[in-house]
Parts: sequence; C-alpha cells; structure tokens
Amino acid sequence: MAVSPRSAADARRRQILRGARACFTRNGFHATSMQDILREAGLSAGSVYRYFRGKDDIVAVIVAEALESVHEAYTAVVTSDPPPRPDTVVASVLARMRGNAPAPEADRDLPQLLIQVFGESLRNEEFARMMAAGFSSVIEQWVVLVRQYQELGWVDPLVNAEDLARTFGGVLQGYLVQAALFGDWDADAFVHGLRGLVDMSVLTSPGQCE
Amino acid sequence: MAVSPRSAADARRRQILRGARACFTRNGFHATSMQDILREAGLSAGSVYRYFRGKDDIVAVIVAEALESVHEAYTAVVTSDPPPRPDTVVASVLARMRGNAPAPEADRDLPQLLIQVFGESLRNEEFARMMAAGFSSVIEQWVVLVRQYQELGWVDPLVNAEDLARTFGGVLQGYLVQAALFGDWDADAFVHGLRGLVDMSVLTSPGQCE
Repeated sequence: MAVSPRSAADARRRQILRGARACFTRNGFHATSMQDILREAGLSAGSVYRYFRGKDDIVAVIVAEALESVHEAYTAVVTSDPPPRPDTVVASVLARMRGNAPAPEADRDLPQLLIQVFGESLRNEEFARMMAAGFSSVIEQWVVLVRQYQELGWVDPLVNAEDLARTFGGVLQGYLVQAALFGDWDADAFVHGLRGLVDMSVLTSPGQCE
Repeated sequence: MAVSPRSAADARRRQILRGARACFTRNGFHATSMQDILREAGLSAGSVYRYFRGKDDIVAVIVAEALESVHEAYTAVVTSDPPPRPDTVVASVLARMRGNAPAPEADRDLPQLLIQVFGESLRNEEFARMMAAGFSSVIEQWVVLVRQYQELGWVDPLVNAEDLARTFGGVLQGYLVQAALFGDWDADAFVHGLRGLVDMSVLTSPGQCE
C-alpha cells in the first residue's frame, strides 16, 4: 500500500517522540542526549533534525501535546449542562490524558516527564511560559465550573472562585506528583478519593445541611 | 560574650544551609557547585566539608528538615479531639513550614527546592527513599484523621480512607507545585479554596444533607 509523504512524515515524527519518551522515562531528561533518542528510534541524525531542532524542542512538543489533551478534555466537559461534578471532570481529564499515552504501561511516563519539566521550568523560560499558559487555561475552565456550582448552590457564593479553581487544579497536580514518584496510585482510586472529599460534610459548620 | 563550640558549629552549619538555599533558588540544583555554596556562605572549603559530605548531602538535610517540620505539624493536629477540619490541618502545616523558612521572602525557596527534588528522586535513590518515607508518614496521619471524620459522620464510611488521605496529600503537593512555578498564590487563598471544597455539597447526590 502506498504511503503518502505526509503520513510517512507524521509516522516518523511519532516514532521520534516515542523514542524520546522511552529515553526520558528510563534516564531522565538531563541524562538523555539526542544520540540516545536517535538510537532508541532507530533513525539517523539527519532525519531527526528534519523534524525537531533538538532535545528541548522534542520535550516542548510532548508537553504541548499533553497540555492540549488536558485543554480539550476540559473544554468537552465545561460546556455540558448541568455541569459535571468535580470528580467526574477529573475522571474525564485523566481518561483523555491516559488515552493519549502510547501504551498502557506508559501511564507513568507523562507524569514523570511533567515533574521534570516542572523543575526545568524554574530555569527554562520556554517551559515556564508553556506551564503558565497551560495552567491559566485549566484555571479559567475551573472558574467557569465553580461559578456554575455556585449558581446551583453547590458552592457557597462567598467563596472566591479562583481560589477554589486553583485548589481543583492543585488536586490534579498532586496526582501527577504521586503517579510520577510513587507510581502505585491508580486513577480510579484517585477519582474515588476526590469524590469522598467533594461529598464530605463537616456537620458542625454552621449553615451546612440545614 | 563567649560562644560555646557546639552553638558555634550549629551556627556555621545553618550559615552553609542558608547559602545553599540561596544558590539553589537562584541557579537551580544542577547548576550549583560546592564552590558557589562556599562563596555564598563566605566560608572556606575545609569548613564546609566538616559539616557536609557534598551538595547532595546539603539538599538531603534541607529536605529532611522540611519533611520533619511537616511531620511535626501533622502530629500536633492529628492528636486533637475533636479532629480539626482538613483546611485547618493544612493551614497549620503550611504555617509550620513557612515558620521554618529563613526569611519571609524565602516562602518560594522550599517549594522550588522540593519540586527539583521530586524530579531528582526519579533517578536518585536516596531522594526517592526520603520522599517515599515523608509521603507515607503524611498519608498515615491523614488516614487517622479520615477515620475520625468517618466516625463523626463527616465522611461516608464507604470511602476508602487511604484514597481520601492521598487526595488530601495531593492537595498540598499541588500547592507546592503552584507556589514554586507561579509563586503568586498565597497560603491564605489556598486554605480558603480548600475550605470551599470541603464545604461543597452536590445537592443532587443522594444521601447528602438529608
């Protein structure tokens, strides 16, 4: 079957990204050279540099794709009416992130890469910009949801929507940290835990459940 | 006034740790050499190596002190009766962590160092062990709290206590990520957001607020 130049280029590009992910997971971002990525992908130097400027560029593409999938997942749920519960939102976002992983065993790859990018972004301006933009987009979408929750009476109208939005964003970041570092926490257990938190009700607090 | 050898040694040790923190914050962990730390602390090589084996050892001490302060903060609240609300627990822990910072402007130092250690611990076994032990201790203490919440009827008894404990642990990790990367989120806003989440009640969910 003939393969169009376009899809062949795309396949080559994905092959490089897959090789890079494998190297970053095994040896970390700092210890991985372009040579390692070439070897892993089974390609020559020329063909890699046709698609990517270098290692930082490959990482940037992997991270941009991850942030894009997160953004799409939020966009899909944020527009539903009535709004989904927070744990349902997070379950959808995680399913989308995991669905984009190259293989089920790669579930830990993306969290591990993101944790390294968190560290790098303290010194790398391009990564810092990407993280800040990705995070702002997540927070904006949570703010929309929180305002809907407030209209529905699920959240106290006096709560600052951005503070609560950041807490929801933080819950997902905490999951990434735990998945990367301790890899033994599955996404269902995480959603279950968040569901328990959302449904928690402190019975002594005034104005609650009256 | 005469200074005892013991307290002089301790002051010297703190001087080195302070210098190291400043370097790590400014240039990152990877780009900081022992020479940089010596220069920052205004000390000679001999005096540093009397207290620390090297850079990793200094980071390990800073992280161990942070984890110890977190552990102490949890221990202080976990034994109170009735148990404090989750947002009160987190407020105490943050106050303790911030209270141990060398200066108010260093609020971001510890999160930034921890984020870097998260990344390092993917490859450094000593850091990985420290993180795992610190995290286990936090989760154990949250499990104790969650069981108390369940006895009080604040949390559904069917919720898996460890899943919820990990969610609470994750909220704090998310705060560290945001404080390190986006540095504009104050601890009070964070506690306020978490309070909003704890007090949230999804009115359509059955069995809630009946």
